[in-house]
Amino acid sequence: MSEPKIQPLVVTPEVEQDLAVVKRGCDELLVEAEFAQKLARSRATGKPLRIKLGLDPTAPDIHLGHTVVLNKLRQLQDLGHTVIFLIGDFTSMIGDPSGRNATRPPLTREQITANAETYYAQASLVLDQTRTEIRYNSEWSDALGARGIIQLASRYTVARMLEREDFTQRYRNGVPISIHEFLYPLMQGYDSVALESDLELGGTDQKFNLLVGRELQKEYGQEPQCILTMPLLVGLDGVEKMSKSKNNYIGISESPDSMFGKLMSISDDLMWTYFELLSLRPMAEIEAFRRETQEGRNPRDIKVLLAIEIVDRFHGTGAGQKALANFEARFRDGALPDDMPEVNLAGAPMGILHLLRQAGLCASGSEAQRNVQQGGVRVDGQRIEDKSLTLQAGTYVVQVGKRKFARVHLT
Amino acid sequence: MSEPKIQPLVVTPEVEQDLAVVKRGCDELLVEAEFAQKLARSRATGKPLRIKLGLDPTAPDIHLGHTVVLNKLRQLQDLGHTVIFLIGDFTSMIGDPSGRNATRPPLTREQITANAETYYAQASLVLDQTRTEIRYNSEWSDALGARGIIQLASRYTVARMLEREDFTQRYRNGVPISIHEFLYPLMQGYDSVALESDLELGGTDQKFNLLVGRELQKEYGQEPQCILTMPLLVGLDGVEKMSKSKNNYIGISESPDSMFGKLMSISDDLMWTYFELLSLRPMAEIEAFRRETQEGRNPRDIKVLLAIEIVDRFHGTGAGQKALANFEARFRDGALPDDMPEVNLAGAPMGILHLLRQAGLCASGSEAQRNVQQGGVRVDGQRIEDKSLTLQAGTYVVQVGKRKFARVHLT
Repeated sequence: MSEPKIQPLVVTPEVEQDLAVVKRGCDELLVEAEFAQKLARSRATGKPLRIKLGLDPTAPDIHLGHTVVLNKLRQLQDLGHTVIFLIGDFTSMIGDPSGRNATRPPLTREQITANAETYYAQASLVLDQTRTEIRYNSEWSDALGARGIIQLASRYTVARMLEREDFTQRYRNGVPISIHEFLYPLMQGYDSVALESDLELGGTDQKFNLLVGRELQKEYGQEPQCILTMPLLVGLDGVEKMSKSKNNYIGISESPDSMFGKLMSISDDLMWTYFELLSLRPMAEIEAFRRETQEGRNPRDIKVLLAIEIVDRFHGTGAGQKALANFEARFRDGALPDDMPEVNLAGAPMGILHLLRQAGLCASGSEAQRNVQQGGVRVDGQRIEDKSLTLQAGTYVVQVGKRKFARVHLT
Repeated sequence: MSEPKIQPLVVTPEVEQDLAVVKRGCDELLVEAEFAQKLARSRATGKPLRIKLGLDPTAPDIHLGHTVVLNKLRQLQDLGHTVIFLIGDFTSMIGDPSGRNATRPPLTREQITANAETYYAQASLVLDQTRTEIRYNSEWSDALGARGIIQLASRYTVARMLEREDFTQRYRNGVPISIHEFLYPLMQGYDSVALESDLELGGTDQKFNLLVGRELQKEYGQEPQCILTMPLLVGLDGVEKMSKSKNNYIGISESPDSMFGKLMSISDDLMWTYFELLSLRPMAEIEAFRRETQEGRNPRDIKVLLAIEIVDRFHGTGAGQKALANFEARFRDGALPDDMPEVNLAGAPMGILHLLRQAGLCASGSEAQRNVQQGGVRVDGQRIEDKSLTLQAGTYVVQVGKRKFARVHLT
């Protein structure tokens, strides 16, 4: 297939600016020159680009890590483009067709709709709903029929599919790959054909699948989509990617106080990454903040701005200021110490008394017990009254009395 | 999956006899002990076995080579079993879905029906029509839909599919394999599930695909089919497999005289193979013929019996005797010499005069020309009157005068 011939448009400074917004914080934009052309054409014609995000409707409870991609979509919407929130219901209704994986039963139409609605209700706190289309891929996937699937499968080779890293590994190690696993990336790619997508977003781990869509569009005579991969957000511990299983996450439906407190607990370094990936403030403003801290401003003041923006987003304007007030009230002197020691502990779940000793905040078990009984122990700003409290793995700011603090990473 | 548990039946001498008929001339019967059980159960219950033959409805003009499998089906019908003549219309209607192979356009429903009818009209000269079901696999293949195909594809692994010899070779040599090529053996295997096949026949080169059907039946909880592969018939030259492109074939719609003459031209060795694979005479009778020739009987007399049986089959009872009479009238002395020299010539197509010299039947071009003009030259018993006649590649009995013969293999 030859590439469609398009007379190149001039990439104006405005287009360059748009491109900078798109690239902010991204892992990779392929192919940048092509996407500059798409942006330029959209500016010239006034026709919005079609930006695809594919979603598996099985995990509707999202955390800040999931919003990195949503944030990017919002930035694209703010440039005038259309986001397609694509629910992958077709494959979800199939489940694990081999029947060998009991943990992945097929979902019913009702479950899928409910999950998709829950997901969208959460995502719409980030997205501009007036520039979002919601689509379900069963619309065109079922219509393919048996013949359509065969025709689709003729557009891609076994060797290229085996180049996907996990397939390569499994094939090499003799771990079975069912043939239908080769069909899923094709179905996902066909979604791009059906939607005439200009850009598809995904996590870095999705790069191969996103490229399949690009290649299938060429096969079907369309201008190929570009692909934009976003990095995975690092969790509160500053080490592992944010995930529920690591308990280093902030759920977007957590209370304002919990969300605010957790954001205030991140390290100063991590704060800049969060600004880049989660804030809608222009990068120029963020760079100005960074210069101010280099010139001596307390990073904590900047972190407060981030925490307020995020809490406002998920709980409405004003919620951030209120959470700040609560936060300051909890930490009576109004500030966490700048030099809080970091402590790594293994052995979650761990009782609070044991943790206080291990973290070096109390010299003995009885001292720990006495402090709890006297109301002198706080975890993430909340007073602890139950000496039998057990903490799961996670990162906590633990305070004993007014002066002793530690940021404890419990695993 | 565990094998279905069946109480083993006693393999009686009758069942042993049936099994011998099934195995006659075959390349491989898998799994023989299982098939003996199927035969025994059929005898015990009176329920015929279901024997599948899959056909591509694209090449309706068949030759004796194609009838080897049909003959085996007829033998199975004579034991009381049901043959399913399965037209693979589903994939034929797709053609080459990549569109890269212009020589394999999709067939229309009308073309497929016409081809299938032509094929069946020819095959029914061998088969017992009262014990034949004609089916089209689009009946259940289209009904699978997109989801059904994905579910089917989940039943087989990439690694096992790559074990098919041609796939192994192509993958190793970097020759592209389109993913849909992995789906075709699965569709073919699913035919066995849909038909609840007990035995599938095919050429030796089909073994892998036949085994896929067996394995899919297990996956779908059915008793697996057995598979029976038949060797490819050697052509008239005694060397290459019979094929049109080698011009070493006998088409089943050739005239009785042509068919008879060609059969009489095969070597005495090849005759025994043809008896085993093409004749419906019991093997005991054929073994008796062989003993007679070992004791001095002229193999030509036995070859006449084969030629009469085959001509009768395709042209009706009595046609063989008539063809014999014509054959004997053409060779006036009524017999081909027993010690006919074999001559291999390269350079087809070749003029008759040149061929007569090259084969050593005439000393010069002018002698050859004189013999043709005088009516003394015959090819396969037919007098040659045109000295500019050109022969294509093939095997011919060439005669000059009453005494000079040669079997010429022209390539």
